[in-house]
Amino acid sequence: MRPINILLCAGMILAPLAATGQSGSAEMEAAAVTSPLFGVAIPEGYRRWQLIAPAQEAAPLDELRAVLGNAVAIEAYGKGDLPFPDGTVLAKLAWKHVPSPVFEPASVPGAPTTVQIMVKDSKRYAATGGWGFGRFVGGRPVDEAQHRTCFACHEALVKNNDFVFTRFAP
Amino acid sequence: MRPINILLCAGMILAPLAATGQSGSAEMEAAAVTSPLFGVAIPEGYRRWQLIAPAQEAAPLDELRAVLGNAVAIEAYGKGDLPFPDGTVLAKLAWKHVPSPVFEPASVPGAPTTVQIMVKDSKRYAATGGWGFGRFVGGRPVDEAQHRTCFACHEALVKNNDFVFTRFAP
Repeated sequence: MRPINILLCAGMILAPLAATGQSGSAEMEAAAVTSPLFGVAIPEGYRRWQLIAPAQEAAPLDELRAVLGNAVAIEAYGKGDLPFPDGTVLAKLAWKHVPSPVFEPASVPGAPTTVQIMVKDSKRYAATGGWGFGRFVGGRPVDEAQHRTCFACHEALVKNNDFVFTRFAP
Repeated sequence: MRPINILLCAGMILAPLAATGQSGSAEMEAAAVTSPLFGVAIPEGYRRWQLIAPAQEAAPLDELRAVLGNAVAIEAYGKGDLPFPDGTVLAKLAWKHVPSPVFEPASVPGAPTTVQIMVKDSKRYAATGGWGFGRFVGGRPVDEAQHRTCFACHEALVKNNDFVFTRFAP
C-alpha cells in the first residue's frame, strides 16, 4: 500500500491529474483510492495501530467493529484533551458479525465490510470540524453522495466530543 | 505494572515465597497477581498490543471483547504457522456490552469485566498444550477452580488450532 501512503503524506488530491498525460492510468488509479470531497486515503500500516475500542452494530448492518488510532490519536486519548490535534487519524474496521463456528455464545468477525478513516487537519478541513472522511469498500472509496453524509451525522451527534464517536475502552 | 512484568519475564511462580520472610507482604502481593496453577501475570503494556480480532459474547455475559497479541503472536498469525511459537502471548480484554449513548444501533464497551492471558511455553506448560492461562478480574486472578476449566475447554473445541479460538480479522 505504499503508493496510497505517499498520496496521504503529500496531502494531494490527484483527480485533476488523471486526464493529463502519459502516466494517466497510474494516476487515475491513485485518484480512485482517495475519497471524494476529502481526498482521504487508507493509511499504510493502519491495521497495526493500537485499539481504541471495539463496537457492535445491530441489524441491518450486523457488524463487529474496531476503531484503531495512529500514535497521535492514542496520545490524545491518553491525555483526554479535546480537540484532537492535527495529525490524528482514526480507522474504523468493520466486519460482518457471524456466529463462532466453535463456540456457540460468541460472534466473531466474518467478511470485512468497510474501512472508514477520519483525518484531523484543522485548516484543510475547516468546513467539516477539522476532519476529513473516507469510507472504503474493498479498498475503494464509496461515492460522493455517501461522503456528504459523514459530517452531518458526526456534527449532529458528537459535536461536543470533537465530532468523534468512539471513547477509549480501558 | 513493572513488578508484574518482572515476574513474567523471570518465569517464576512466587506463591511459595509468600510465607517466607521479612518482605512477605510485597511477595504476597506479587503472588496474588499471578494466576493459580500457571503463574501467569498480566503483561506490562498489553493494552498497546496489536488487535487480532474483536468478538461479542451473548447473554448472560453480554460482553464485547478484543483479543490483542504481542509481537511474537502477530508474526505467527501473519505467517499462519501452527503451533504458535514459545513467547506468544495473547490478551483477551472484555467489557460489558452497553448501548451507545449517542447512536442507537451501536453497542459499545461499558465497564471492563475480565482480562484473560494465554502464554505459550511448550516446556513449562507441556501438560496443557504448551499454554499457560490467567484470568483476571479487576487486575486480580480468579480462583484455582476457574483456572482448572481453561484448558479443558480449549482442548475440546480448538485443539486443531493449537488450542486458540481467535482467528485474525483482516
